[in-house]
Amino acid sequence: MRLVSFSHKGSHSWGALTESGVYDFKALSDGEWPTLRGAIAGRALGQFRSLVASSEATFQLQDVSLQTVIPDTTTIFCSEASAGADSGKKRVSMHARREVVIRLASTLVGHGNPLVRPADSEQFEFRGRLAVVIGRSCRRVPAELAIDHVVGYAPFVETTVREWLRPGSSSTPAINFPLTCGIGPWMKMRESPGEEATFEIATRLNGSEVSRQPATEFEREIADSIAYCSAFTTLQPGDVLVVGGRGRREHNEDPTYLKPGDNLELEIANVGTLFHPVIDEVR
Amino acid sequence: MRLVSFSHKGSHSWGALTESGVYDFKALSDGEWPTLRGAIAGRALGQFRSLVASSEATFQLQDVSLQTVIPDTTTIFCSEASAGADSGKKRVSMHARREVVIRLASTLVGHGNPLVRPADSEQFEFRGRLAVVIGRSCRRVPAELAIDHVVGYAPFVETTVREWLRPGSSSTPAINFPLTCGIGPWMKMRESPGEEATFEIATRLNGSEVSRQPATEFEREIADSIAYCSAFTTLQPGDVLVVGGRGRREHNEDPTYLKPGDNLELEIANVGTLFHPVIDEVR
Repeated sequence: MRLVSFSHKGSHSWGALTESGVYDFKALSDGEWPTLRGAIAGRALGQFRSLVASSEATFQLQDVSLQTVIPDTTTIFCSEASAGADSGKKRVSMHARREVVIRLASTLVGHGNPLVRPADSEQFEFRGRLAVVIGRSCRRVPAELAIDHVVGYAPFVETTVREWLRPGSSSTPAINFPLTCGIGPWMKMRESPGEEATFEIATRLNGSEVSRQPATEFEREIADSIAYCSAFTTLQPGDVLVVGGRGRREHNEDPTYLKPGDNLELEIANVGTLFHPVIDEVR
Repeated sequence: MRLVSFSHKGSHSWGALTESGVYDFKALSDGEWPTLRGAIAGRALGQFRSLVASSEATFQLQDVSLQTVIPDTTTIFCSEASAGADSGKKRVSMHARREVVIRLASTLVGHGNPLVRPADSEQFEFRGRLAVVIGRSCRRVPAELAIDHVVGYAPFVETTVREWLRPGSSSTPAINFPLTCGIGPWMKMRESPGEEATFEIATRLNGSEVSRQPATEFEREIADSIAYCSAFTTLQPGDVLVVGGRGRREHNEDPTYLKPGDNLELEIANVGTLFHPVIDEVR
């Protein structure tokens, strides 16, 4: 099932997107479940499947405006393996295994909306990554049990304002400019064990493929990120972990920067394809 | 005016704390302003002053349970000057002037509640700092205009799980363990220009003073932090910036770690005194 958050005539709702259109689950539940995040936390998604089977679509896709998948997410953890964590050269402690930085929800735009290059940046770097949506509250989950805490996945375009990166320092400012990242178009619910092994990521800039990451290591990286983040914080339903994509260091060797007029497309096989144009900030 | 968020018989409210007791501004506004954060955003605080003058206190302090000052704050920016930013040895670019890391609201406890030392930490470091509460939405504010965007101040106990710190890496995990930091007891509204020049910070551990920071540089640091953070994100009413306190590097030279049974007191002259016992996490 593909779940979307959207606005229709200025009012927020959420539901499923199928080939016959958008099912408005807020309306179909008589307002009992007003948000996707609430329905995840209430473990209510299962009951909506039968609604799709037994009713008609509420809207056609063109009649709604897609929002960021979980608009009221408060926490987005951007996670990647630390440099050298897998090098085998020396033992890396648990605490040093990953890099984790928090990104604010104000950085996100929904599918089709423009990414905004900040007025003071000419090095507006991007990566295609995978958003992992947490389904159940968890703390200190062992990696081997972690994947069961995932409720779904979405494509995620992560950008970095490179002028604000400094060696040896937090990248928090560089990744927190408003409206610079994209998530969507939908959250694909996790439905079968091992499906992550098919999640190949392809990123296309103005129609040309600029990077491709095979799916082979996804399941391990997702599990490792959940184990790592849940070691220091309690992950909550609707929290998002961002994983995968070519590492920033690797990407640095031949950076391609986004500029106004660009069109960016991120396709994750068996998850979805996310599209964003790029515009310049108007100051 | 000193503003508190509190619960009374299990229900959340907020209001003013005076010598005669707690004024419940949610009740006194007939529910129009249910939260302090909402009242800050709605620029409604001024109208409550006359309520205090013309009515009786609703509760005595001992009848309510103090919460974190702005319980629905989503964003806490911990900010400090970068190493070398003021050294004069070489020019430091705007982008490198400060260190900023995001702390989640789940890390906070209110006045009197215990700080929880994580089960896997024996190096649970602390600093007394100042929480600066933003009153108005702002982006790219020049330092010389920044202080006008402050609505109030509160003492802030910031802790770091040192085992999770690594040189050259983000401290995000190390500062985001649940219930490890304190804010309160109240937000003292900013009322007069230059009052920051009186904010001396004294930290006492089990009755003995362990650090004291003079107030001389506060106003400059507050302004610089607002200018820096608003350069990359839009600060919102109710957002919190944490500033001041001895720098982590300086503190490192002779660290004192918190342990169960400790009692920590942070007094900021002309703001308030925050108290927390320390307990061990129960796994």
